[in-house]
Amino acid sequence: MELDNLLHGKSEWLKGTGPKSDIVISSRIRLARNLEGFPFFNWAKPKEKEDTLKLVRDAIEKSKFLKKSLFLNIKDLPEIDRQFLVERHLMSPEHVIDLEYKGLVVEDKEIASIMINEEDHIRIQVLQSGFNVIEAWRMSDAIDTDLSKKIPYAFSTKWGYLTACPTNTGTGLRASVMLHLPALIITNQIGKVFQAISKLGLTMRGFYGEGTEATGNFFQISNQVTLGRSESDLIDKIGSIVDKLVKREESTRNILMAKQKDELADKIWRAYGTLKTARIITSTETIKLLSFIRLGVDLGIVSGIDRTGLNELLILTQPAHLQKLENKLLTPDQRDYKRADLVREKLKGGT
Amino acid sequence: MELDNLLHGKSEWLKGTGPKSDIVISSRIRLARNLEGFPFFNWAKPKEKEDTLKLVRDAIEKSKFLKKSLFLNIKDLPEIDRQFLVERHLMSPEHVIDLEYKGLVVEDKEIASIMINEEDHIRIQVLQSGFNVIEAWRMSDAIDTDLSKKIPYAFSTKWGYLTACPTNTGTGLRASVMLHLPALIITNQIGKVFQAISKLGLTMRGFYGEGTEATGNFFQISNQVTLGRSESDLIDKIGSIVDKLVKREESTRNILMAKQKDELADKIWRAYGTLKTARIITSTETIKLLSFIRLGVDLGIVSGIDRTGLNELLILTQPAHLQKLENKLLTPDQRDYKRADLVREKLKGGT
Repeated sequence: MELDNLLHGKSEWLKGTGPKSDIVISSRIRLARNLEGFPFFNWAKPKEKEDTLKLVRDAIEKSKFLKKSLFLNIKDLPEIDRQFLVERHLMSPEHVIDLEYKGLVVEDKEIASIMINEEDHIRIQVLQSGFNVIEAWRMSDAIDTDLSKKIPYAFSTKWGYLTACPTNTGTGLRASVMLHLPALIITNQIGKVFQAISKLGLTMRGFYGEGTEATGNFFQISNQVTLGRSESDLIDKIGSIVDKLVKREESTRNILMAKQKDELADKIWRAYGTLKTARIITSTETIKLLSFIRLGVDLGIVSGIDRTGLNELLILTQPAHLQKLENKLLTPDQRDYKRADLVREKLKGGT
Repeated sequence: MELDNLLHGKSEWLKGTGPKSDIVISSRIRLARNLEGFPFFNWAKPKEKEDTLKLVRDAIEKSKFLKKSLFLNIKDLPEIDRQFLVERHLMSPEHVIDLEYKGLVVEDKEIASIMINEEDHIRIQVLQSGFNVIEAWRMSDAIDTDLSKKIPYAFSTKWGYLTACPTNTGTGLRASVMLHLPALIITNQIGKVFQAISKLGLTMRGFYGEGTEATGNFFQISNQVTLGRSESDLIDKIGSIVDKLVKREESTRNILMAKQKDELADKIWRAYGTLKTARIITSTETIKLLSFIRLGVDLGIVSGIDRTGLNELLILTQPAHLQKLENKLLTPDQRDYKRADLVREKLKGGT
């Protein structure tokens, strides 16, 4: 597999087909692991970094779950490709701050990816379409179990898996769910939801994870604590909270449709009109307007466009994706043109 | 002729066919006249008001220029029809503040109209499409001369025509030109233009005359002084100033097309997208967006829509017009829906 194949293929999580995929974009499990006998990455000497990169890579290459994977040495990648992989949610923005001794393994359907030598030696990530934390957990657990037989993990019977940052110690598990909550935003309920969620030990973030703002009504919810709980506890907990959020978003959508259908349709159609006609458009505005169209599709107001197409546009209109599609570097101004062209082209069919 | 026929006919000035009609919407001449031997309307007793209404009406009915006219007694009209006539620029908003003893005569092509017992006993108005002050003057002068043979005007050899407000004394003539100046707005030149124009003794107003704000880049320019100058002087003066404004707007459009074509096209297309999709829209937003589309048509960016259609939409989307089209009273909210429906319907053809 080549990295450029990813551009024209469809990631599993973009299909928009999983359970509750009208509201839940994707479900993700991330496991943080470190190798026994080696310092954590940020404290390690170059030779040790080189060794952990090699050891993990070798183990992955032997894993039955990752046979069709692509191994990438981060420092060999052009900047545009690094950004591209971040945009596809295959690795974290932090993984490319420093480039030495860092690797990424991408499974061929882009469901699983493994960062080597991010903050921890191993970060296994599994991303599923829709509300599917359990399936993501099953797959990450299988990969994890398989790898653990090939390389010894740093593990304490008292603390569990040891990690560079104490917040990850214990299960090393972070479950995240990306939600589309336009009705909760429109009706100003999102503030309360935020508060309630943080009291329950969960965090809410924007489209690109830690430190990013919510754009276009997309939110990512994750557990904050990993210590002192079993994996299934953590997964059950986030599952039941997401379930409540989904129900609340659904009932609010129903109320909006009953009481403010025309105002809602107006917002949705105007978003559609703008995307179908704009000649220059930023990434942020695109996400915001796509969010409204997605809502329009969910509510049966807009037809002729499918969720897969909209999910794809969310990703393809990002800076690195646009540049890879054009096969050249573009200034931000040039991207705003190309983005508008792409969106108009892709939305041609809809009515 | 019936008043309701006006709704589905096209006023001459809406045709968008006159000289420079890409920038000049319409040219208007208004003549203020009063009857000799009667107090000005606001000082007159009811019997005198009744007499002037009758005298002027009789004279008009005998005029060869106004044979196919419609006479309307303002107090007999439903409120919606009064507003309708104001929206069509056939009479002033002031003419309907008080309803007693007020008349309106509308010539069948809506080129000429005469208000009886507005501030002055007679206000002759001629409205032509495009930059055509001279033709408007010719026609108003012909009507005026004809009427003056039938009823004696209040005239002083020292002061000229005597009027209720001293600012109209002299020729009693106000020449107004409605301009569409989007390029001067976009490039922030309009402030300077305003200043220059008021130094020259002219005023600039919005779409609905005195006291209204400029909406959607439409401006009305009129002479302020009517005393101590001949009619042809006044007309020459406004003509030469409008000519300069038109040239400046034209050259600024050319500069914009050379330097910022894409940004301009983006604005125009977005306006188009919004009008083609909105489900709820106010009158002000409609005028603003139609202004951009008009510019797009002028510059060849948008095709399949003609200027007549756009001019028509400017008028048909006004509150009273909408209600007459629907043949019932509508709340402002209901109008915002109907307006959006009408605009979408009318813009169907364009691309």
